[in-house]
Amino acid sequence: MTARLAESLVTTEALAEIFSDRSVLGAMLQFEVALARAQARLGLIPTSAADAIARAGMVDAFDTGAIAQAGRHSATIAIPFVDALVARVTVVDRAAAVFVHWGATSQDLMDTTLVLCLGRALPLIQTDHLRLLNALRALSDQHANTVMLGRTLLQPAVPITFGLKAATWFAGAARAGAQMRAAAAQTMMVQCGGAAGTLAPLGAAGPMVAAELARELQLADPGAPWHTCRDRLASYVAACGVYCGTLGKIARDVTLLMQFEVGEVSEAGGGSSTMPHKRNPAAAAAALGAVARVPGLVATFLGAMGQEHERGAGTWNTECVTLVDVVQATGAALASIAASVESLGVDHARMRANIAATRDAVFAERAMMLLAPALGRDAARALIADALAAAQRGDQTFAHALAAHHAARDVLPRDLVRFAAPEDYLGSAEHFRRKLLNEPT
Amino acid sequence: MTARLAESLVTTEALAEIFSDRSVLGAMLQFEVALARAQARLGLIPTSAADAIARAGMVDAFDTGAIAQAGRHSATIAIPFVDALVARVTVVDRAAAVFVHWGATSQDLMDTTLVLCLGRALPLIQTDHLRLLNALRALSDQHANTVMLGRTLLQPAVPITFGLKAATWFAGAARAGAQMRAAAAQTMMVQCGGAAGTLAPLGAAGPMVAAELARELQLADPGAPWHTCRDRLASYVAACGVYCGTLGKIARDVTLLMQFEVGEVSEAGGGSSTMPHKRNPAAAAAALGAVARVPGLVATFLGAMGQEHERGAGTWNTECVTLVDVVQATGAALASIAASVESLGVDHARMRANIAATRDAVFAERAMMLLAPALGRDAARALIADALAAAQRGDQTFAHALAAHHAARDVLPRDLVRFAAPEDYLGSAEHFRRKLLNEPT
Amino acid sequence: MTARLAESLVTTEALAEIFSDRSVLGAMLQFEVALARAQARLGLIPTSAADAIARAGMVDAFDTGAIAQAGRHSATIAIPFVDALVARVTVVDRAAAVFVHWGATSQDLMDTTLVLCLGRALPLIQTDHLRLLNALRALSDQHANTVMLGRTLLQPAVPITFGLKAATWFAGAARAGAQMRAAAAQTMMVQCGGAAGTLAPLGAAGPMVAAELARELQLADPGAPWHTCRDRLASYVAACGVYCGTLGKIARDVTLLMQFEVGEVSEAGGGSSTMPHKRNPAAAAAALGAVARVPGLVATFLGAMGQEHERGAGTWNTECVTLVDVVQATGAALASIAASVESLGVDHARMRANIAATRDAVFAERAMMLLAPALGRDAARALIADALAAAQRGDQTFAHALAAHHAARDVLPRDLVRFAAPEDYLGSAEHFRRKLLNEPT
Amino acid sequence: MTARLAESLVTTEALAEIFSDRSVLGAMLQFEVALARAQARLGLIPTSAADAIARAGMVDAFDTGAIAQAGRHSATIAIPFVDALVARVTVVDRAAAVFVHWGATSQDLMDTTLVLCLGRALPLIQTDHLRLLNALRALSDQHANTVMLGRTLLQPAVPITFGLKAATWFAGAARAGAQMRAAAAQTMMVQCGGAAGTLAPLGAAGPMVAAELARELQLADPGAPWHTCRDRLASYVAACGVYCGTLGKIARDVTLLMQFEVGEVSEAGGGSSTMPHKRNPAAAAAALGAVARVPGLVATFLGAMGQEHERGAGTWNTECVTLVDVVQATGAALASIAASVESLGVDHARMRANIAATRDAVFAERAMMLLAPALGRDAARALIADALAAAQRGDQTFAHALAAHHAARDVLPRDLVRFAAPEDYLGSAEHFRRKLLNEPT
Repeated sequence: MTARLAESLVTTEALAEIFSDRSVLGAMLQFEVALARAQARLGLIPTSAADAIARAGMVDAFDTGAIAQAGRHSATIAIPFVDALVARVTVVDRAAAVFVHWGATSQDLMDTTLVLCLGRALPLIQTDHLRLLNALRALSDQHANTVMLGRTLLQPAVPITFGLKAATWFAGAARAGAQMRAAAAQTMMVQCGGAAGTLAPLGAAGPMVAAELARELQLADPGAPWHTCRDRLASYVAACGVYCGTLGKIARDVTLLMQFEVGEVSEAGGGSSTMPHKRNPAAAAAALGAVARVPGLVATFLGAMGQEHERGAGTWNTECVTLVDVVQATGAALASIAASVESLGVDHARMRANIAATRDAVFAERAMMLLAPALGRDAARALIADALAAAQRGDQTFAHALAAHHAARDVLPRDLVRFAAPEDYLGSAEHFRRKLLNEPT
Repeated sequence: MTARLAESLVTTEALAEIFSDRSVLGAMLQFEVALARAQARLGLIPTSAADAIARAGMVDAFDTGAIAQAGRHSATIAIPFVDALVARVTVVDRAAAVFVHWGATSQDLMDTTLVLCLGRALPLIQTDHLRLLNALRALSDQHANTVMLGRTLLQPAVPITFGLKAATWFAGAARAGAQMRAAAAQTMMVQCGGAAGTLAPLGAAGPMVAAELARELQLADPGAPWHTCRDRLASYVAACGVYCGTLGKIARDVTLLMQFEVGEVSEAGGGSSTMPHKRNPAAAAAALGAVARVPGLVATFLGAMGQEHERGAGTWNTECVTLVDVVQATGAALASIAASVESLGVDHARMRANIAATRDAVFAERAMMLLAPALGRDAARALIADALAAAQRGDQTFAHALAAHHAARDVLPRDLVRFAAPEDYLGSAEHFRRKLLNEPT
Repeated sequence: MTARLAESLVTTEALAEIFSDRSVLGAMLQFEVALARAQARLGLIPTSAADAIARAGMVDAFDTGAIAQAGRHSATIAIPFVDALVARVTVVDRAAAVFVHWGATSQDLMDTTLVLCLGRALPLIQTDHLRLLNALRALSDQHANTVMLGRTLLQPAVPITFGLKAATWFAGAARAGAQMRAAAAQTMMVQCGGAAGTLAPLGAAGPMVAAELARELQLADPGAPWHTCRDRLASYVAACGVYCGTLGKIARDVTLLMQFEVGEVSEAGGGSSTMPHKRNPAAAAAALGAVARVPGLVATFLGAMGQEHERGAGTWNTECVTLVDVVQATGAALASIAASVESLGVDHARMRANIAATRDAVFAERAMMLLAPALGRDAARALIADALAAAQRGDQTFAHALAAHHAARDVLPRDLVRFAAPEDYLGSAEHFRRKLLNEPT
Repeated sequence: MTARLAESLVTTEALAEIFSDRSVLGAMLQFEVALARAQARLGLIPTSAADAIARAGMVDAFDTGAIAQAGRHSATIAIPFVDALVARVTVVDRAAAVFVHWGATSQDLMDTTLVLCLGRALPLIQTDHLRLLNALRALSDQHANTVMLGRTLLQPAVPITFGLKAATWFAGAARAGAQMRAAAAQTMMVQCGGAAGTLAPLGAAGPMVAAELARELQLADPGAPWHTCRDRLASYVAACGVYCGTLGKIARDVTLLMQFEVGEVSEAGGGSSTMPHKRNPAAAAAALGAVARVPGLVATFLGAMGQEHERGAGTWNTECVTLVDVVQATGAALASIAASVESLGVDHARMRANIAATRDAVFAERAMMLLAPALGRDAARALIADALAAAQRGDQTFAHALAAHHAARDVLPRDLVRFAAPEDYLGSAEHFRRKLLNEPT
């Protein structure tokens, strides 16, 4: 188990593992070994040196705690790490030590490490994303004809279908997820610029080293260093922010629909430490908690982009931990909301009962559309207000109260039941539902 | 003049005009008139009603102050606006008043209004963006061979060219600008869903009304309402955040390079209210001030995405003002940094002098690459440290101090001048510069 | 009417007026006139010059649009404003023009202007704050014995009183309001430091000018300039953030309690542009919309504190507009939530009915506390789970289902009605309520 | 070593330890043991049960990884922790298991745990804070007479003293630090409210249990639960934000003054992974990196305050991890900037040389104050502009160029050297310096 108690709700076990010390250190070693191999292949350093570096680069041989602590003195863990690697290589093959980190800079190492770790996280997130989309699509299809209250400002508006609601969840998540994946793909590139982005020590071979290194690490070669151009990482972080916004909307709706007094959906849920009767929307709540973390992190990342000259003083570090936090929070929110949606029970009867509880008041708009052209706006308003008041007093339904007025009766359809049937006032709900499910995923 | 004193530095005159009362009100009227026309064309309302609405919808006939104030009681200005329009239409053609805002909801009106205003802002921003890119490209080409210090953590690193620096500015701005434009294009769509996103009052005609309305307003028809899917607007706002991050990086560099003690570039600049000698990087500073506003606004927008059910309670309003602020801040930052870059003077001599002032210390990496393979890492380090100390004491340059050591002399190139010539240690600067300028704009 | 449509929901009419051009310009003139008077009184400039400056400083004589536009070229409106004032004074008394802004700098002018405007806003906010506290206290006292569901994670927990809930609203708002007021008081000080904070042109008289200026403006004299110490303003902005957080909690609860399906409270509310039956929690929603704007603005202000040397490049401007936005959003949220709370109707019967609807399940904790010591934890759990299941099936209440078990019956009180009476399981609700209302205001 | 690589730069070793699993788990056990003891002392549970709970509550007996993982299913780690403790106690004393967590709720446990951990962090932060203040005061006193350039918008303004600059650093840090400590003190209170804040299961004994529990844990008893009033924690987090803002200002200035081209101060600094000549402002950069993390976290915390009803769905978790991050980032920034300031070397000569390099242009304001009253504003401006141009061409100093004009010569002091002596144009620098150092710490 890798996730820590204090942050366990804003990560998943698998993502915590990816950003664990072993994993980060492993990626750092992967970079240095690949760099040496690329340079050896190009004849820039001896093959024996590359071999020695590969042999010395065993994760278990390093004291990550010591590296973490020493890193504070140079404002990067790259320096104590390289020192430690040099020391290890010296033991294995003294002559090879010279060629460790050859021509590279701390940022080459750290940026590429971040990209490598991120690259491991992406498939996990994509898997859960597809799980979520599948669950949402199934839910939408299953409830294409399940009528429920549409609610605006948390008050009954007009009827919709649960299928439509689930389809809007789907469309938002699909679109934002696709954007996030596209933005992620743009970040999967090696950083290789040397001290100030010229690869000066490698002479004319610089671009070839970068290309070879990229191939070795199965990353793209951007053609030029991006040490001062943080826009690709920023776009990914921002896309996570938008995606989490769409997840938060789903989670918010689930918690609201699952309220005891609403009772329209329920997720598997969790219990309480003291109240045996409790069934909490635990997964949706966990998602909301993780989602809430993200906007501030996005702001932090964007604010850290103004890095001075060829490498900024400090905010480069801010970026790294912020991205790590964003990826974990996104993955945690996604895992939770996927679990919530997959386990979602839907109570058709309660949905219909909640519409009925309005005593047909939610058809007041419908009445207005029918009455106003015939009677004029003011007269229609007055009649409807009267009928709404009657319905609210509990005497009768809005439809019957309205039909009690001569003027209205002539305009309303004969069949008052159909007038106040939710199925009959769904407009283009099904049309829109299908359009929304067409969103490419 | 429209921009107000208190916010004049975070907008431009033209953008302030776009979000002025007249302009916002104009867009609101444009929506209602277009809706009526679309519905008349489809035979849903009388043509005479559409005509009356068009005739009544004169900007000057409305009291925006009264609408603003009344809006606070319904948490949207849509309601008092529609009431005022109904009153106006009633005067023009009593029967037509019924068909004002027919089947639509406040959010249809307000979202589309926002999109229409944004649509007016986009070309202005694009124009300045291209101005900036052109200026940066020209600057980069002109200074392809202008050597200067690369600086990391605000300290001399190794030489680069100013052309390379300008090219990294270009590439970041070009890429982020292209993303911003793509995201903007996605938002140019009509909102048309009615009370809860089903267009129920329009029966089967809903999608046709939406399509016709879109055509009328020269917006896209998204196929389904997006009242609860705020991801497109959010992606645009986030893209502005990334773009502003790249602008801030340029502005930061300009202010640093223009420091009196550095003196490598200077923009036209501004003066002081009390010090006649002052030449401030006023445009770059104005850009930094506007840019700093954006990350927090992006966070606000993302945080407001979790809107409840079919329309949230409150955060929908937050979105609107936030987007207005982001667009203005982005446009203001862009206008300022474009002006700064266009006016930028570059002092070649000072750039070279600043390199020279390091007494060749910036070639220590170069020395290391040459000496370490020959002498071993530790011996090389020791020699270089000695020579750096000598250079720092001011006795001689690093190159000469190093060459004074036997061991080093044999490894260093004969021509010490070339060893310490910035032009000779630029690596792939020019190669990368060209790649960076290839970024599609 | 001063507030603009695009931002009308995040300000009040009175606050928009305070930050209007006339008001800001008025404060700028107030500073310059007071400075001249202070200097004349100390014999540093001729009294006639101070008189001329006072005569020339009429708000109507200035073109704020031109100042706004010109300000963009110097990254502050102070410079064109001073130029305009000099021009005006020259007309009135040529010799006096020299003494305009004598020894002062742009930041003295702008910071003091901001403080003066803020000073006008504070009493308005305090008045609404006291309104809110009074309304909350009255509500709490009135409903000291009104039982309702306590809800955690949006699910029924155990009973509380509405008086207790209102008291927690009160305590949070009272405490955060007191902090906000204390932080505000710390900002009410003159800025007077000259070009770089030494008041060099005033020689030894500097501190006396600052003191006299402060007296003239009825502000405190901090003893030293604070041009680079933005912590007092930041603390005020942050305190607004905390205060808005407490307002947002109240508004959130109101919108939730007012849900049709919950129906426990209702505010006066607002209508819909299309649905006659709608009664929206408009004031609470407006409050939520304004509140949501604030955390991002606080982050912006805090992020702008790292101002370079004796005056930063740009972020000083960010501060100003951010503070203006924060004050207006805070005032708007407060006005809305005060209106909401003052108009709040409480439905005792519905509150009690919502408890009853749980079929006594909310007394499961109570049962556990009684049964577990007697029967052991596991046996107690099993019995309670059985009884909860029975209650959920709807056969009988939890209390009766539980009492149907022999083992439980012996432990439960004879009087099952009292066991499941909300009034009988309120613990220290009233004790805590009184404590919370003791919070100093 | 506890801090992880990925976040090692935004914490300190000691703070990472405080929020480690062992430490968090220890605090959780401390709460449960103290609760049991308090209840036993009041006769609410058997003393033997309290003893058994104390015996069972050994940190080593728990699997924190399993608790972390299980916590995701209930949206809190409290529930699996309590289950695990019950299991442990059952082994020790079966009868005692019933009394674990007696009458308490998850939030009582988690909030108090957070407070306990925070309480351990506060003295560490206070120690470093005093270190920093002492170093700043000493620096200011030592350099009371060290003249240097005041700089605004990163350009030379007028002379100041380094003592004054250090004193403004001191005053900001002292004031913000005092506020942060005061806010921290307000958070040091027990949370004890039971399921929904009434302590219902404890009957009339609730407040006594809370008081006794507080005493046991050496925390304050707030008199009522604060489960829904998050303002105290928020105020502390916000105060950290303001404090970090003041630290960031110091760190920003250090990195700027240490630029090679400015060279006025230097901290011990750190090296490079590739460039032997590098001396980076590593500590100041590390501080900037940590500081940049905080504003976004503050926004997150404030945004999470709108928690629903008696316990929110999700954002309560956001609070916890956010506070943990803020405390660590604050402590890390403080430790770094304290180290930077303590090691700060000051180069008097370079400071004076940088003034001289302006060729007296920084005395243009002084000239203006002398010439304008005598010659009129326009004539004075013209003369000064001429002289500045001459100085900039490099012919002579501004003072001499100015004195070459008849009109100016009569007004300038005879002794041109004194006119252009920095010591002679410091105004109230020393007066202000002493005032600033008087700020209570």
